[in-house]
Amino acid sequence: MPSVDEIRAAGLAALVRAGVPQGDAEIQLSLLLDAELRGVASHGLLRLPRVLERIANGVTDPRSRAAFDWQAGALLSVDGRQGLGPVVAMQALEKVCERARETGVATAVIRNCDHLGMLAWYGEHVARHGQILIALTVSEALVHPWGGRRAMLGTNPIAIGIPTASDPFVFDMATSLVSMGKIHDHANRGMPIPEGWALDADGDPTTDASAAKRGAIAPFGGAKGYGLALAFELLVTSLTGAAIGTAVKGTLDSDAPCNKGDVFIVLEPHHGTAAAISAFIEDLRASPPIDPAVPVRIPGDRARSARSARAAARIDLPADIWNRIRDRAGSAHGSETRGDHHEA
Amino acid sequence: MPSVDEIRAAGLAALVRAGVPQGDAEIQLSLLLDAELRGVASHGLLRLPRVLERIANGVTDPRSRAAFDWQAGALLSVDGRQGLGPVVAMQALEKVCERARETGVATAVIRNCDHLGMLAWYGEHVARHGQILIALTVSEALVHPWGGRRAMLGTNPIAIGIPTASDPFVFDMATSLVSMGKIHDHANRGMPIPEGWALDADGDPTTDASAAKRGAIAPFGGAKGYGLALAFELLVTSLTGAAIGTAVKGTLDSDAPCNKGDVFIVLEPHHGTAAAISAFIEDLRASPPIDPAVPVRIPGDRARSARSARAAARIDLPADIWNRIRDRAGSAHGSETRGDHHEA
Repeated sequence: MPSVDEIRAAGLAALVRAGVPQGDAEIQLSLLLDAELRGVASHGLLRLPRVLERIANGVTDPRSRAAFDWQAGALLSVDGRQGLGPVVAMQALEKVCERARETGVATAVIRNCDHLGMLAWYGEHVARHGQILIALTVSEALVHPWGGRRAMLGTNPIAIGIPTASDPFVFDMATSLVSMGKIHDHANRGMPIPEGWALDADGDPTTDASAAKRGAIAPFGGAKGYGLALAFELLVTSLTGAAIGTAVKGTLDSDAPCNKGDVFIVLEPHHGTAAAISAFIEDLRASPPIDPAVPVRIPGDRARSARSARAAARIDLPADIWNRIRDRAGSAHGSETRGDHHEA
Repeated sequence: MPSVDEIRAAGLAALVRAGVPQGDAEIQLSLLLDAELRGVASHGLLRLPRVLERIANGVTDPRSRAAFDWQAGALLSVDGRQGLGPVVAMQALEKVCERARETGVATAVIRNCDHLGMLAWYGEHVARHGQILIALTVSEALVHPWGGRRAMLGTNPIAIGIPTASDPFVFDMATSLVSMGKIHDHANRGMPIPEGWALDADGDPTTDASAAKRGAIAPFGGAKGYGLALAFELLVTSLTGAAIGTAVKGTLDSDAPCNKGDVFIVLEPHHGTAAAISAFIEDLRASPPIDPAVPVRIPGDRARSARSARAAARIDLPADIWNRIRDRAGSAHGSETRGDHHEA
């Protein structure tokens, strides 16, 4: 198992070798590594080979410079020009965070940039600097409407980051019941999926993970979750003018320019609320649990402790992903140096 | 059954008699009547006797004037001074909608005003005027955390209003699995509630509606819905500085000043997206349904057709609520004129 430092070095080398400027490569890799460390493998290093493939295929431009246009005093319109998601997003975020310090709220609406990755990363970044973030993005259509048979909606996540007196509160969820990654994982292991997770290509309920891969995932929370997923999809398109529904491409494949939209809303918290927020979070943690052995959880707790535990340790990265990253990293980090990794 | 006009007249008379200025009474009543017409009885006229009671008890000030303070160029801080929810909210909304036309986004953070009522009303209003609304509010603690036994969170609804080429898209949901009103309704009719809806006062699962009234409602959508309800509660308190969790009072009772917060975020849509939004909504409606007899629904469809059907008709208001409203309306609309209502 490689160490965090080994992964970082190989990942950076692979990105730089693909044409990504060093600073941008660090942003992209930090995001993927943070997801990996939090235990969100679906948004971790398994995405790196796809990022590299997209660059190789010419649908992601590793040296692109996004265009920023203040449509109004607190509304930043961003054309990502097919740049790397986290690179465009962090530039946009820096601008709206600075503006929100003056205006109280500011919004970035982003088009034409690649997959943003795990939104919690942005929520934590903003909240750690004392501001509130609401982040929305969409994916290609993978989710069926409640009562419908066909994948019409993205997995449309929302992340909310809020400053507290200690670690930021960061909530990040997809509006799908499960991720397509989880269904692929079941298919790879030849396992059935539980009833209610997905429909097959004909729109009939299935427990066959392979059939579900060609079908549609259920929204979480029934009709309400469907409504929320739809509202988020419409909200992102209404604000960004980006593609919607089945027209969205480039969030999972390696050969289409990414045409989805992303939205960041940054807000200034009311003065002095951090202590009240922290106190309430502690009240919740201390409130009586159903199972005496399992205290009430706060979103982000598990990810934070996983990250602390893993940061100093080796990462149990699937061998094929690690090999693909090292192969792309070239001679200094490539397969010919694999022996080195058993020494450190 | 009274007609819409009869209800309107009696409701207005009751509010004016309680000391509410005519224009403010019209706002409060329009909101309640709209909820009633949409079929959202829990937020309809059954709330009017409570509004009147709160005024009589001195916890709502019918002639209060809210204080508006632009904390920053796009952030309006509102002290509702215990005024009527829809009156304070509509004033705040007017100001932030106007500001958002200049700044692209503007936010109102509201404290110390009464229950806002059905948030869809605000979403429709804003979207009909060509802007986007995200509205959040909290209630007193009625919902247990996922894995917890005690009511710690409000029912914390979100509404999202988005302009389209025709009727606005308006989504409005609570983050609780069901409303406390529905549980009261089951209790009143001596019916059990389904498993999973609620816990009793000891935090144990119950199907006894009366026991559930003293317990806690489940969040919708399991752990995700709990996370969302919590994120909304923290977001509202972080922005407004208002009360949180079990400290929230005055949203359901008739004797405590209301101390919860409300948040409106108004955004300018990207130019020319209304047609794409409408086209996608039509695609969704036309997509294949699970049940051939039940087309895929768009949130708001049912409420809109219910409203059209009811607007010209009589309203099946429970007799005790109609009697209480007429009694409060005084002689011109009071019980001595009840005979009249059978004529028209």
